[in-house]
Amino acid sequence: MEKNTDAWQLVAGLDHRDTDHYVDKTHPDSFHKTVLQQTLDDLTVDELEICGAETQFCVDTTIKAAFDRGYPIVMKHHMTSTEEDDLIPVPVMVTHYERIWDHHLVTF
Amino acid sequence: MEKNTDAWQLVAGLDHRDTDHYVDKTHPDSFHKTVLQQTLDDLTVDELEICGAETQFCVDTTIKAAFDRGYPIVMKHHMTSTEEDDLIPVPVMVTHYERIWDHHLVTF
Repeated sequence: MEKNTDAWQLVAGLDHRDTDHYVDKTHPDSFHKTVLQQTLDDLTVDELEICGAETQFCVDTTIKAAFDRGYPIVMKHHMTSTEEDDLIPVPVMVTHYERIWDHHLVTF
Repeated sequence: MEKNTDAWQLVAGLDHRDTDHYVDKTHPDSFHKTVLQQTLDDLTVDELEICGAETQFCVDTTIKAAFDRGYPIVMKHHMTSTEEDDLIPVPVMVTHYERIWDHHLVTF
């Protein structure tokens, strides 16, 4: 997703605020070569709630990196999404990852 | 897998050496509350090759934690395994995760 293109814009209808923080990223691991850790430190954030896209890429990778960095993580179900691929249907993909997250990595 | 039970033993036929290191773990993230990071530091390890079980639990979680910790990671295909679950057949599971690892997290 190229920066400043139409596809890169915030989705219409998103409830965003002037006080929100946005972090540019180029890798599924949202901490990798970004200011995310510094931003969380500056805000003295000590717990994360994660949602978004895509389930098996950015969301899963960032959950596991955040867990490894010691963050308690809250995840509601049905708050991630992904695109169809040729191996695993979307509802199965989401259920698979929610089970993995629930079991070891996050609380509800 | 309870420590010191039969199920916990090294698999028969594994080529293990007296110089190997073993790290006790209780979570899919092999770095979580273990001596793994200290062991790697003591050995001045700066690159990892990862294999083992289970694909979608300990292997995937440890790859993502290790990547986030800055390690270059080498992964050969068909070097992880898992048990059947009710959602995704084993060969599909392995292929799915190998694609994710190959794309962003590891080199061959």
